[in-house]
Amino acid sequence: MVNLVVQYPPLDRAFAALSDPTRRAVLERLGRGPATISELAAPTGMSLTGLKKHVRILEDAGLVTTEKHGRTRHCYLGPRGLEDVSDWVEAYRRTWDDRFDRLEQVIERKRGTSNDQ
Amino acid sequence: MVNLVVQYPPLDRAFAALSDPTRRAVLERLGRGPATISELAAPTGMSLTGLKKHVRILEDAGLVTTEKHGRTRHCYLGPRGLEDVSDWVEAYRRTWDDRFDRLEQVIERKRGTSNDQ
Repeated sequence: MVNLVVQYPPLDRAFAALSDPTRRAVLERLGRGPATISELAAPTGMSLTGLKKHVRILEDAGLVTTEKHGRTRHCYLGPRGLEDVSDWVEAYRRTWDDRFDRLEQVIERKRGTSNDQ
Repeated sequence: MVNLVVQYPPLDRAFAALSDPTRRAVLERLGRGPATISELAAPTGMSLTGLKKHVRILEDAGLVTTEKHGRTRHCYLGPRGLEDVSDWVEAYRRTWDDRFDRLEQVIERKRGTSNDQ
């Protein structure tokens, strides 16, 4: 069960970064163009400090870049994208689709058990 | 920045479940067929208790189903797949691809700054 793809730490950080709705919303917002921390915080009703923590997690995952200009921090997408996340998910889905329909499998198994009794 | 897709809690749990290499390895293994906790633990060198914690997180995310037969817990994929994870990632990638090449954007911005000085 050990391979290079599975143990690739940036992939861990990317999936963890995506596990929060505020962080996904920040990525979606930055997909429409750069924004300051204040601009990102406004629609969430979150404090600047709270929002900054989320941005820091996205930054650690390489999904967001920030630059400070005076007292204002500007946020941009990148340098990384979600290619590795997408590759893992699609490879998994192909395995899943190829192998079996999981609901049917569970039903078949339960049927088998009932017939045995 | 608020919409139903972004605030869908199962999506949070799915991304969080995928943020660990052992859990991704368990899903890949179960993609090849059902397995017991012992069979899942063996190649990781992890204790049964440790492996069970990972399986529980996958179970809470709906990605794995377990059934206890006597003293043995059998693990299967499902009932959920990664359709919503895949949908979110692909929608995000389309936005990214449509809007701009992020590296070029950063370079252009830096060039603009240099020219101003």
